[in-house]
Amino acid sequence: MGKIKFLQCRECKKEYTPTFKYICEDCFGPLDVHYDFPSVNKNTFSNREHTYWRYHELLPIESKSNIVSIGAGMTPLIKAEKLGKALGLNNLYIKNDSMNPTFSFKDRPAGVAVSKAKEFGLSAVGCASTGNLASATAAHAAKGDFPCYIFAPSDIEHAKITQALSYGANFISVDGTYDDANRIAAQIGDSKGIGIVNINMRSYYVEGSKTLAYEVAEQLDWKVPDQLIVPVGSGAMLNAICKGFEELENVSLINQVSNMHMIAAQPHGCAPIVDAFKKNLSEVTPVEIPDTIAKSLAIGDPGDGQYVLRRLQQYNGFAEESNNKEILDAILLLARTEGIFTEPAGGVSVAVLKKMVDEGKIDKNDCTVCYVTGNGLKTTEVMMEVLAKPQVMQADVGKILALVR
Amino acid sequence: MGKIKFLQCRECKKEYTPTFKYICEDCFGPLDVHYDFPSVNKNTFSNREHTYWRYHELLPIESKSNIVSIGAGMTPLIKAEKLGKALGLNNLYIKNDSMNPTFSFKDRPAGVAVSKAKEFGLSAVGCASTGNLASATAAHAAKGDFPCYIFAPSDIEHAKITQALSYGANFISVDGTYDDANRIAAQIGDSKGIGIVNINMRSYYVEGSKTLAYEVAEQLDWKVPDQLIVPVGSGAMLNAICKGFEELENVSLINQVSNMHMIAAQPHGCAPIVDAFKKNLSEVTPVEIPDTIAKSLAIGDPGDGQYVLRRLQQYNGFAEESNNKEILDAILLLARTEGIFTEPAGGVSVAVLKKMVDEGKIDKNDCTVCYVTGNGLKTTEVMMEVLAKPQVMQADVGKILALVR
Repeated sequence: MGKIKFLQCRECKKEYTPTFKYICEDCFGPLDVHYDFPSVNKNTFSNREHTYWRYHELLPIESKSNIVSIGAGMTPLIKAEKLGKALGLNNLYIKNDSMNPTFSFKDRPAGVAVSKAKEFGLSAVGCASTGNLASATAAHAAKGDFPCYIFAPSDIEHAKITQALSYGANFISVDGTYDDANRIAAQIGDSKGIGIVNINMRSYYVEGSKTLAYEVAEQLDWKVPDQLIVPVGSGAMLNAICKGFEELENVSLINQVSNMHMIAAQPHGCAPIVDAFKKNLSEVTPVEIPDTIAKSLAIGDPGDGQYVLRRLQQYNGFAEESNNKEILDAILLLARTEGIFTEPAGGVSVAVLKKMVDEGKIDKNDCTVCYVTGNGLKTTEVMMEVLAKPQVMQADVGKILALVR
Repeated sequence: MGKIKFLQCRECKKEYTPTFKYICEDCFGPLDVHYDFPSVNKNTFSNREHTYWRYHELLPIESKSNIVSIGAGMTPLIKAEKLGKALGLNNLYIKNDSMNPTFSFKDRPAGVAVSKAKEFGLSAVGCASTGNLASATAAHAAKGDFPCYIFAPSDIEHAKITQALSYGANFISVDGTYDDANRIAAQIGDSKGIGIVNINMRSYYVEGSKTLAYEVAEQLDWKVPDQLIVPVGSGAMLNAICKGFEELENVSLINQVSNMHMIAAQPHGCAPIVDAFKKNLSEVTPVEIPDTIAKSLAIGDPGDGQYVLRRLQQYNGFAEESNNKEILDAILLLARTEGIFTEPAGGVSVAVLKKMVDEGKIDKNDCTVCYVTGNGLKTTEVMMEVLAKPQVMQADVGKILALVR
């Protein structure tokens, strides 16, 4: 008998055997993985490998032999003293998840989903993605020896898919919108039995992101932060982080999870969850045409939107947005204080953190963790526009000396 | 009294007090750091922070309070089973140093040099660089609260310096060659007392790279690999890796270092050390105009060239080159077997590894470590040229189904 107890519908609570299944037959709600957790304690993990697979007992893979790892996870939790000082916080940490093997947090869910595809004996994997997820899925597919199919709209730039193509993925470039690519991926996944990580493998996929909670808890010596700032696109990651902390409390590794505050950060131009939160609604109204530089968060109709709203209620949370100017300023602030170079999604987190401090919603002594989940090298064009090209100097020491303090 | 015993000229062996000094007054030889090492054992390091600063007793910083860390080091040593199988090796490891905070191994030497600049009380830091080192120096300068000056020739593309500019570095864009930029950096460093990490801080700077030996030894449970493949530009890194293994033997953490084999990998078009090695010379003839896609190894007159030749003699080594085609093939091979996306310098290592195996110079059961030191996201344009843009498909499930196995 495996450690997964069952899959359970998040809505109607119907239980299912843990098979290649992701949606409730009765009410179409998402299925979550529930476990029979073994007895663990702090020492269980302390001398393990330095990847998120150190928590394998708490992840939905029954046999360790099915793990497909490229060394992701256990990214640094940086004590951000300089950024903290700039913002007026004494106890600020950055979870720098740009330092994964494919350079975003997506190595977590993609790695778990590809491992589960191996456990299920599937013949191929894939995803619908235009960015970070494509690379994470393709890299894990390469390591796991799976053919990989990436479904994306055809207007995506060649430069943006070069990384994923390098890993050997087959690109299905669809003449249509992202929604078209997504629909085709779902249909092909179902008819060919291909594990589309963010669609028909989603129940297992989202489990990877909860390691962002496990690692932060362990890196804080099994304490729960007071404040967490989480960038939100579909909302799956924020929901998974909450699940992660709850599971650690269930196995008695931490306590007082109910005291933490969850802050959802979205970009202006695609902030449907923030809008719903501020209007005190329980449902999210989709944004028709997202308009933001934070492309990796530009999901107009967030699948987990309503669950994020519930989480914010449950965990005394807030939702806030930041505009393009604030995002760019925040990217530079983070780079110039902590030496961390992030993509716009990371700028959204830091900009919203700043706003929360300015509005007095975070106490300066609170233990605050800000998640930075993607890499600035993937979006250099955004920064090139705001950083002036240096003036050319004559190769004359005397003249150049005058420039140097 | 500190743990640094003295600086010593690598040539005439003259000793110096460890101050802000890097070149022998008598013979102009480079100065190396020698230590009074404390007593250490395997347990000394095992529960330390997961960065290269876990070895702080063996690094040239007297007081821990001067450490400037952005979380670099302890990058994964990946058991490369799929790549090993493709090449015919049973015991191959990749040291994936693309996973550092600024995405190359340069975070090691730059971090040590910037920390030493803090210990010396210098007012600013800088470097002469056109690539990875510029970002590593700028990021550590940001975290350490130093003004940072990057000296580079003016023909460098804006996109290539966006990362370093984001960290707030001052770019001195010199109308001239890299040699001009280098000369001006040296003169300004000396006259203003600025720590130019790869020039006047070089004795301390190179110490950072030896952590590439420490980590591999610890990750192999304190064993020495049989074969090491090291990409070579200036040669400083290969020399530092040898020094690192020797120091670990001196403190009795490992033994039989003299049995290891060092393989120097250079790109065709800039392989002066390979040329000298193959002609059995003890001096390197500079390459006037380097011509290779491996820009980060395109150093025509390698400062440590003669020392690399000595190391290859000392450690039963070889030197080999790979051409552009072989480099590109190797980048794809690594990505498609291990899910690791590297820049051309990493392709040089893997291509030379393949050549060594094909020529029967590596036994299939040897413990072989191949160093991959930089990130493919910094050189996507190189890969775009060899990866075809996917054909656009009509958004029709039936037609697309036919494409999928």
